[in-house]
Amino acid sequence: MSLLESTIANIPPSDAVAAAEVQRRLDGKTKPRASLGRLEEVACALGAIQATAAPRAESKAVVVMAGDHGVAEEGVSAFPQEVTAQMVANFARGGAAINVLARHVGARVVVVDMGVKAPVPGLPGVLDLRVGPGTRNLARGPAMTRAETVRALEAGIGVAAKLADEGVNVLAIGEMGIANTTAASALTAAFTGISPDEVTGRGTGIDDAAHRRKVEVVRRALAVNPVDPADPLGTLAALGGFEIAGLAGVVLGAAARRVPVVIDGFIASAAALAAARLAPRAAEALLASHRSVEVGHRAILQALGKKPLLDLDLRLGEGTGAVLALHLLEAAVRILAEMATFEAAGVTDSGR
Amino acid sequence: MSLLESTIANIPPSDAVAAAEVQRRLDGKTKPRASLGRLEEVACALGAIQATAAPRAESKAVVVMAGDHGVAEEGVSAFPQEVTAQMVANFARGGAAINVLARHVGARVVVVDMGVKAPVPGLPGVLDLRVGPGTRNLARGPAMTRAETVRALEAGIGVAAKLADEGVNVLAIGEMGIANTTAASALTAAFTGISPDEVTGRGTGIDDAAHRRKVEVVRRALAVNPVDPADPLGTLAALGGFEIAGLAGVVLGAAARRVPVVIDGFIASAAALAAARLAPRAAEALLASHRSVEVGHRAILQALGKKPLLDLDLRLGEGTGAVLALHLLEAAVRILAEMATFEAAGVTDSGR
Repeated sequence: MSLLESTIANIPPSDAVAAAEVQRRLDGKTKPRASLGRLEEVACALGAIQATAAPRAESKAVVVMAGDHGVAEEGVSAFPQEVTAQMVANFARGGAAINVLARHVGARVVVVDMGVKAPVPGLPGVLDLRVGPGTRNLARGPAMTRAETVRALEAGIGVAAKLADEGVNVLAIGEMGIANTTAASALTAAFTGISPDEVTGRGTGIDDAAHRRKVEVVRRALAVNPVDPADPLGTLAALGGFEIAGLAGVVLGAAARRVPVVIDGFIASAAALAAARLAPRAAEALLASHRSVEVGHRAILQALGKKPLLDLDLRLGEGTGAVLALHLLEAAVRILAEMATFEAAGVTDSGR
Repeated sequence: MSLLESTIANIPPSDAVAAAEVQRRLDGKTKPRASLGRLEEVACALGAIQATAAPRAESKAVVVMAGDHGVAEEGVSAFPQEVTAQMVANFARGGAAINVLARHVGARVVVVDMGVKAPVPGLPGVLDLRVGPGTRNLARGPAMTRAETVRALEAGIGVAAKLADEGVNVLAIGEMGIANTTAASALTAAFTGISPDEVTGRGTGIDDAAHRRKVEVVRRALAVNPVDPADPLGTLAALGGFEIAGLAGVVLGAAARRVPVVIDGFIASAAALAAARLAPRAAEALLASHRSVEVGHRAILQALGKKPLLDLDLRLGEGTGAVLALHLLEAAVRILAEMATFEAAGVTDSGR
C-alpha cells in the first residue's frame, strides 16, 4: 500500500463520546449553559477530533505552501508570476502578513516550496519539497500528472506527520501562488458541479475584462480536462497545483494523526475539499476559519458542511484568516481547562 | 463645571487625516490593496481615535463593572440575585470566563463594584465605587436618582482617566448584574423608539412565561417613567443601573483621552448608547466587538452605526466578546507596524 493509501485508510472517525464529555464539562462552568456559543462548539469539535475530553491547542503551526501555475500565462492575475518567489523570500524573512499574524497568535510558520517557477536560492527555513518548476497550463490540458499529484500529496502527508511527531496540537493551512484562484475556481466547479461564473472571483484584484477572461479560462479548463466525480485524484491532477495538492496531503496526514486542521480562504479550502473527496472522513478533522470575499469560497464551505468562525472580508490567503482562528481554538480550550465550576466557585447554578 | 460636563466638553473629534495616513501606509505593505479587509478598517479607526498614523494596542484592559437591580424582584432572570456578588468573587479569584479570555489576549481585568446588593467583603483587587446596595425597581419608578447617576458616570470617568494615565492603549468594557438585560432592554426601547417586545430577549436563559413577564416589565417601566429624548441623563437614571451608568462614564472618560473603547454585548452596548446620547462625539471612540444573541443588540449597534467584528453566538457578557476583539485590534496594529513594504521586500507591486 502506498503512503497515500495507508494514510487514507488510517483516518479515524471523530469521537462523539469525547465531544459529549467536553459539553458536560462546559455545562459545569460558571456561566449560563451554552452562553459561549461557537467557542463551546469549537471545544467540542476539538475533543471529537483529538478523541479526548481535554483537548489541547497551545502548540500551533501554520503550513504555508507555495507553487507556480502555468495558467498564469493566460493573464488571469493582477500580479506577475515572479511575485510567488518574491513572497516566499518575504515569508522566509518574516515580513509578510502571515508572519506578523502567526507571531501574534504564537504559531510556528512552516514555509514549503512545492514548486515555485524560479525559486530564490538559499532561503533559510524554506522546506524544499519541489515537485517541478510550476504546473502546466490547465486551460490547455492537465496541470499535473497523476504521479506528480501523488508526490505532492505525499509530501504534504510527510509535513503533517513530522509536525504531529513534534507535538503540534492544531494546524492551520495557507498558500501562495500567483494564478492559484483560477485553479481553485476550476476545482470548485468540478467538485461541486456549480458553473464557472458562479465560483470565479477577482483574486488579488483584477478588473472586469480580466475577470471575464478568467471565467473563460476556467470554462476551457473544464472542457479540455473531462473530469470524473469518481476520480478525485484525476480531477486534482488536471485542475490543481503543487501547493494545493500538498495542502490536501497535509489535511490527510493531520486527520490520520487526529490533529485538527483550520482551513484558510478559497484556495486552502479547495485543497481541503480535494482531501475530503479523496477521503470523506478527513472532513471531520477540519474547522473553517473565515469567510473569504472570494465568491467560490461559500460553495466550498457548503460542500464541506463547515461554518466559518470569522467574517472579516479577508482575501489575502497565506493562512492569515486561519491563524486568527487558531487563537479562538486556543480560547475555547482554555475556557474548558481554566474556568471555575459552579461548585468550586460557590456560585448558584440555575441549571440553565 | 462638573467633572461630567468638562469631560463631555473635552471629547475631541476623530482625526480623519491620521486615518488616511494609516491607509496609505497599509497600501505600501506586501499584500493586494485592502485584502486584509476589516483589519485594515480597524487600523484606520484606531489611527483616527488616537490621532496618529502609528496607533498602539499592546497595553490592553477590560473594565468589568457589577451592580444589582431592584427589578430582579419581578422574576425576570433565570438566576437568583445573589449570583451578582458570587460572580464578583469569582472575578476576583480569576475563575470566570472573562478572566480566562483576558489572560489569553494579555489584557488586565479591572473589576469594579458599582453597587452589588450584598458584596462579599475583603475581595482583593475589586475596586469599591459603590453608589448603593442595588438600584430600585424600574418597573415601579426611577431605578436611580439623577445624583446617583452622575456619581456612577463620574466614577466611570475616573476609572478611564486612571487607566489612560497608566498608559493603557485600548479599553474593553463588560458587566455583571442579575436582571440587567431588563434594564438594557428598557434603555434600548427608550433611546431607539423600538417597541419593548422587539428589544427584549431571554438574557441568561429564561423560559417563555418569564420572557412574557419580562416584556411586560419593560412596558411598565416605560409607562411609569415617562422618558424624554432631550434628557438622556434622566432616561439613564430612570431605566439604567449603577454598572450601566458607570460604563457609560468609562466611555466618556476614555473618549476624552483618545482611548478607543471596545464594547461587548447587549448591556455594555446599552451603556455605550447612553454615553453617545449624552455626548454624540463619544460614539467616534467606539468599536463594536461582537453581535450578541440578545435580540436588542442589533438595534443598539444600528443606532450607534457600528458593525461588529465577531459573530460567535455569545451571550455571556462580562466583556468576553470585547476582549476577543482586543486581540484583533492588536493584530491590526501589528500588521501596520511590522509588515514589510513592497519596496523593502523587493516584491513587485501591481498597484492593486
